[in-house]
Amino acid sequence: MKGVKRILFLNGSTRLRDTLWRRAAFEKAEAYGFQVEFRSSSEGREPDWASELSGFDAAVSSWDSPKVDAALLRYADGLKVLGHAAGSIADVFTEEAYAKGLRVATANPVMAESVAEWSLMATLLAARGLQRYAGFFGASKMRWDARERVRDIRAMTIGVWGFGDISSRFLKMLAPLKPRRVLVCSRHGDPAALKSLGAEPASLEELLAEGDVVHLLAGMTRENFGRIGAKELALMKDGATLVNSGRARLADEKAFVDALVSGRLDAILDVFYKEPMPEDSPLNGLPNVLLTPHNAGMPGRELYVPFILDEFKRFFDGGPMESEISLRRYRTMTVESLAGA
Amino acid sequence: MKGVKRILFLNGSTRLRDTLWRRAAFEKAEAYGFQVEFRSSSEGREPDWASELSGFDAAVSSWDSPKVDAALLRYADGLKVLGHAAGSIADVFTEEAYAKGLRVATANPVMAESVAEWSLMATLLAARGLQRYAGFFGASKMRWDARERVRDIRAMTIGVWGFGDISSRFLKMLAPLKPRRVLVCSRHGDPAALKSLGAEPASLEELLAEGDVVHLLAGMTRENFGRIGAKELALMKDGATLVNSGRARLADEKAFVDALVSGRLDAILDVFYKEPMPEDSPLNGLPNVLLTPHNAGMPGRELYVPFILDEFKRFFDGGPMESEISLRRYRTMTVESLAGA
Repeated sequence: MKGVKRILFLNGSTRLRDTLWRRAAFEKAEAYGFQVEFRSSSEGREPDWASELSGFDAAVSSWDSPKVDAALLRYADGLKVLGHAAGSIADVFTEEAYAKGLRVATANPVMAESVAEWSLMATLLAARGLQRYAGFFGASKMRWDARERVRDIRAMTIGVWGFGDISSRFLKMLAPLKPRRVLVCSRHGDPAALKSLGAEPASLEELLAEGDVVHLLAGMTRENFGRIGAKELALMKDGATLVNSGRARLADEKAFVDALVSGRLDAILDVFYKEPMPEDSPLNGLPNVLLTPHNAGMPGRELYVPFILDEFKRFFDGGPMESEISLRRYRTMTVESLAGA
Repeated sequence: MKGVKRILFLNGSTRLRDTLWRRAAFEKAEAYGFQVEFRSSSEGREPDWASELSGFDAAVSSWDSPKVDAALLRYADGLKVLGHAAGSIADVFTEEAYAKGLRVATANPVMAESVAEWSLMATLLAARGLQRYAGFFGASKMRWDARERVRDIRAMTIGVWGFGDISSRFLKMLAPLKPRRVLVCSRHGDPAALKSLGAEPASLEELLAEGDVVHLLAGMTRENFGRIGAKELALMKDGATLVNSGRARLADEKAFVDALVSGRLDAILDVFYKEPMPEDSPLNGLPNVLLTPHNAGMPGRELYVPFILDEFKRFFDGGPMESEISLRRYRTMTVESLAGA
């Protein structure tokens, strides 16, 4: 890498800047010879990002960054690479940016690690059935008489719909717990790779019918939108647990809510049809449902920018980036506009 | 192994029999050529176990089995091995039984796996701080405004006091989650073995002072009884979480309860000074404490007897048993009489 590289944080929110750019990020930037600059929006007015980009070698985007299209890039004479310090780039990056020769990497692997960890926690909560006997931080009383209602993950089948960044990490974390069977439904899941993770390929119908705990981690393609409907939910065993840290809209809203309100199925959810979830949501307060406020992927946000800076270092040194999104992959990935907020 | 071996279940409880002896156990006994027999207590009267043991090659004990001493063994002419389908053998086995040449194995490794899994779940609950924002199965409301109060295990130090069957399994399950540091205090922890599990040796004082989550998993020796007192608790950081799935009496009761009632420390507990924990325990209903009814090790109880039968098979085939307790180990292990109920 030759000379100092100039990097712009392509986001005017000082709050987000303070969240993402912590000491470790600045230390890394300095060590790599990156000169980082920031522009703030003020009184709701965004900086003129197109002009600002002139002269920068790289940019870091995140939630609510401006769309990176031909108009935004019209003065970006030196810009070679964008790093997205968040999950999916689909809301920010465009085919026009690819056409201009811009390369793009994402901090998604860091977030996927956190969501996988949340999925592991959800699996343990579901497997052991904590709600039946635990005294949960003063909100519920411990029930000694129900202590034998604990269950064993080694007697359970875990179903996973989808095999991507989150699922593959989740399966690695799950393996030491030795569930009886792990069934994975994915067009991308190579059987040998699945086997090395202790899992077997299955159809969506098989894993719904067999799973004691079923994780919805498929990408939000047009085909997967609302794919879990009343018919699919009816395949599930009484008392099985649906876990969703992916996309709410993988399941049909009415069928999903009906199944939970009826109490036939349990659920552990981090994503919702509307976010923030409205107070009067029928999911609120159900005794068979645990809710977290779409923060499964939040732990580790301070690692996003250091990860992106490592990617930039690899790029400017002429090597491949670990999480580059190719145009081909871009075209097959999550369609955020279908996934909602 | 020559001929059919006769095995007696050394426990008169039909309820425990039904819990421990499931189909897989009987299938295994049949496959190995073991003839299993049961005796029931009736109207509170125990069978005359000493007479009953005559003619048996092996026996399986469990919770509340009679003490295996010289008196019990006086007619046990053919008995060569005892398998304890529970945790510690200290309440059942005696030096007199060793003197008679009896060998003993325990299903403790199976239970340790379950307790390690509970410890992993507790670590994730503590690390993420679920009580601050989760809607827990209708018992508490989800708080969207508190969603950023999630924390990251990758920025945390996990302290583990003790390095035995549970800790070693727990560290293996914990490693994929990449905590910032794992500190282990144990006289038995070989630094190389710890390092291979991603952990470092530390003094008890160091891990109390540094730990964001601290696990009490030491054996209950005379020296460890009440070892965590007011002075030790004062070393801990505000808001750190004490996790105990080992023995309540590792901590001094008054100092421990005071620290939790004050709210300065959080706790996740499976073991109690009195069990069942009394309704009026000051720990009941605290907003900073999660309680489970001493069932961390319960999942997998149906695996105890098959594990013991595998041990018997190895023994009768002339090989070593995996979980045999030598007299030397017996003398250094948990003194159950100190550990309470």
